[in-house]
Amino acid sequence: MIRHTVVFKLKHPKGSVAEKKFLSDANLLAAIPGVQAFEQLRQVSPKNEFKFGVSMEFKDQAAYTGYNEHPSHVAFVKDRWVPEVASFTEIDYVAL
Amino acid sequence: MIRHTVVFKLKHPKGSVAEKKFLSDANLLAAIPGVQAFEQLRQVSPKNEFKFGVSMEFKDQAAYTGYNEHPSHVAFVKDRWVPEVASFTEIDYVAL
Repeated sequence: MIRHTVVFKLKHPKGSVAEKKFLSDANLLAAIPGVQAFEQLRQVSPKNEFKFGVSMEFKDQAAYTGYNEHPSHVAFVKDRWVPEVASFTEIDYVAL
Repeated sequence: MIRHTVVFKLKHPKGSVAEKKFLSDANLLAAIPGVQAFEQLRQVSPKNEFKFGVSMEFKDQAAYTGYNEHPSHVAFVKDRWVPEVASFTEIDYVAL
């Protein structure tokens, strides 16, 4: 199992329509083949700058690669993530 | 539910006895009252500097505060975390 997480901050003002729309539209990622345990989350620690997170799991690297290369993911990154996300960090976990 | 995660890098060399001992001893945190879904993880994304992670959940802020203030946690931070951890980031999630 690989748990892929991304913690991020949007360019949109807090509580804005644009913020809500981004978070709503990001749910399309859950429908990409291979995605398991999809979660959208609010980041609440004051010890980092990020406000939201997404977490998903893949059964193996092949499933993860399939997600990365899927047209829906590629389009989301190009059309929504790059223009609307101010900063982010990717953190991927496997069993210790 | 609050999911408390910390992603970190140890000062110890990769695969060293000191590294193994730190990771083994960190399991004591799982026994602190209020800790649920405790996981130790390996961080594998090349897009950040961290090599390990810990994740746990609390039912509410009171349980999280109880953990933070518990003598076992305070001692672990003072005696092991501060001297042995090179860098870390705390990320806490709640439902969106």
